[in-house]
Amino acid sequence: MKNSQFKQASLNKIIEDHQSGSAKIAFIALQALADYSVQSTLTDPAFYLRDLSDFALRLQQTRPSMAILANTIDTWRQAIGRSHKANLITLKRIALDKAHDLMAQSRLANEQIVHQVCDLIADDSVILTHSISSTIISCFTELAKKSISAIITESRPGNEGCLVAERLSHLGIETQFITDAQLGLFVPKADVVLVGVDSILADGSVVNKAGTYLTALVAYDTGTPFYVCAESTKQSRKHNVSIHLEEMGAAELNLADLPHITPRNIYFDVTPARLISGWINEYGMQTLINEPPKHV
Amino acid sequence: MKNSQFKQASLNKIIEDHQSGSAKIAFIALQALADYSVQSTLTDPAFYLRDLSDFALRLQQTRPSMAILANTIDTWRQAIGRSHKANLITLKRIALDKAHDLMAQSRLANEQIVHQVCDLIADDSVILTHSISSTIISCFTELAKKSISAIITESRPGNEGCLVAERLSHLGIETQFITDAQLGLFVPKADVVLVGVDSILADGSVVNKAGTYLTALVAYDTGTPFYVCAESTKQSRKHNVSIHLEEMGAAELNLADLPHITPRNIYFDVTPARLISGWINEYGMQTLINEPPKHV
Repeated sequence: MKNSQFKQASLNKIIEDHQSGSAKIAFIALQALADYSVQSTLTDPAFYLRDLSDFALRLQQTRPSMAILANTIDTWRQAIGRSHKANLITLKRIALDKAHDLMAQSRLANEQIVHQVCDLIADDSVILTHSISSTIISCFTELAKKSISAIITESRPGNEGCLVAERLSHLGIETQFITDAQLGLFVPKADVVLVGVDSILADGSVVNKAGTYLTALVAYDTGTPFYVCAESTKQSRKHNVSIHLEEMGAAELNLADLPHITPRNIYFDVTPARLISGWINEYGMQTLINEPPKHV
Repeated sequence: MKNSQFKQASLNKIIEDHQSGSAKIAFIALQALADYSVQSTLTDPAFYLRDLSDFALRLQQTRPSMAILANTIDTWRQAIGRSHKANLITLKRIALDKAHDLMAQSRLANEQIVHQVCDLIADDSVILTHSISSTIISCFTELAKKSISAIITESRPGNEGCLVAERLSHLGIETQFITDAQLGLFVPKADVVLVGVDSILADGSVVNKAGTYLTALVAYDTGTPFYVCAESTKQSRKHNVSIHLEEMGAAELNLADLPHITPRNIYFDVTPARLISGWINEYGMQTLINEPPKHV
């Protein structure tokens, strides 16, 4: 495959992937960088480096709501940028190794999070989650050894809850599958809410699939603990006010074309820190900044 | 059509109607009583009365979450019960007249509610509603004369938001159509939330389509006024703890059959009075009992 074809195919794969969580997307991007660093046909080290770095930037820009993508690719670009005087063979080796290294770090962070979560969750707990997260799926894989049960949401319009259902069914976990609108009925039936997130903002608020804020509101209103499970690379320097929340195609809502009616499809919402009981990352349980309640 | 066939067809029509709000369902039930009171082939007044009263009870029991159905049919049964000494012709006349009378009262109450709502809503307001309500559709029909715009929810799994979209499109109201999961993003963009409800319980909490509690939580959290629009016959003597929330067929969720996975489809949730800014009925704006916030 030509350089430009490979790059475009990799970008399209991420742009069209509306079901994977941000850790998985970062993995796919790093794998694309690893593959491209080897198979790029450019032979001049400066051109090779510039082309690779430009590809990394474009990968980063595919999903602006995902801090892990920004952070991981920044780290990767800095590493290869520091090697700008190396020869082509060395450059290829550094680019490939750094991508693999970052993937391994992410895998390790996730294993550590799973360990923390398993220590936290008691036998026979009912765990509710919203949307899909590779971190949460890893937690369930380990938690399946305890006699826990699950409540999961459909997560319209991508319906990634159906994928979660398949995974939990395979793991033999007794699971109730609900529409997003039933969150108010089912969060109170859970012992704990666990969600993965796309980004943790500078003020401690979290960006995740639309509906996460609703889940957190019910958890807060009913006294149900609400934990965010996310590796530290998901921390963003951005503030709530400057965050761009991606909107996807309206066709996903399957609404008939009607005059005056505009279907909206914003994929992410922001959950304020004051509603979050804690952030579990690879270093343990972190407390987010807890602003005072707004309207009380 | 035979008596038993007519009755079963009427009951099925209501049982299978998952899209109409409770005022519409009460209307359909009253119309069935009006029609049946005329066409019943029973000739003995005592048998006629008992059969009609039994049919009314069965209509009432089709939708236990709907106070208006219970209240309206109670009133109708009391009226015909008081006439048990009348002859057949008189009985038929009373049964028919009382059904028509109750339908007219409901229509008038709705007109008065629309009038109250129109006084409340300023020009250029953005109004958000969840699910479908004939009262709210009547409000929009009148509000279309002001330059208001709307935000409406899909309302899974019945998707009655699609019906609302058709009505608002026809009225020429600029409308944003969102998934239920996007409520946290769009309630803050509204000036006011208006919902119809199925029942107002003794403690001031309201029973309505699942997702209403989520809508009210966001409204409360973001300081957006949240009004319930419902005729006074929707007041129930029941308390939150004794209310039965109907669950419909899981097939509506369209989830593939998977071991260990149970799709749940509870149609209604309960919104506590403390989250509700006011109840607009035919007499004006009522204040619901405001319990203190629970977890602050």
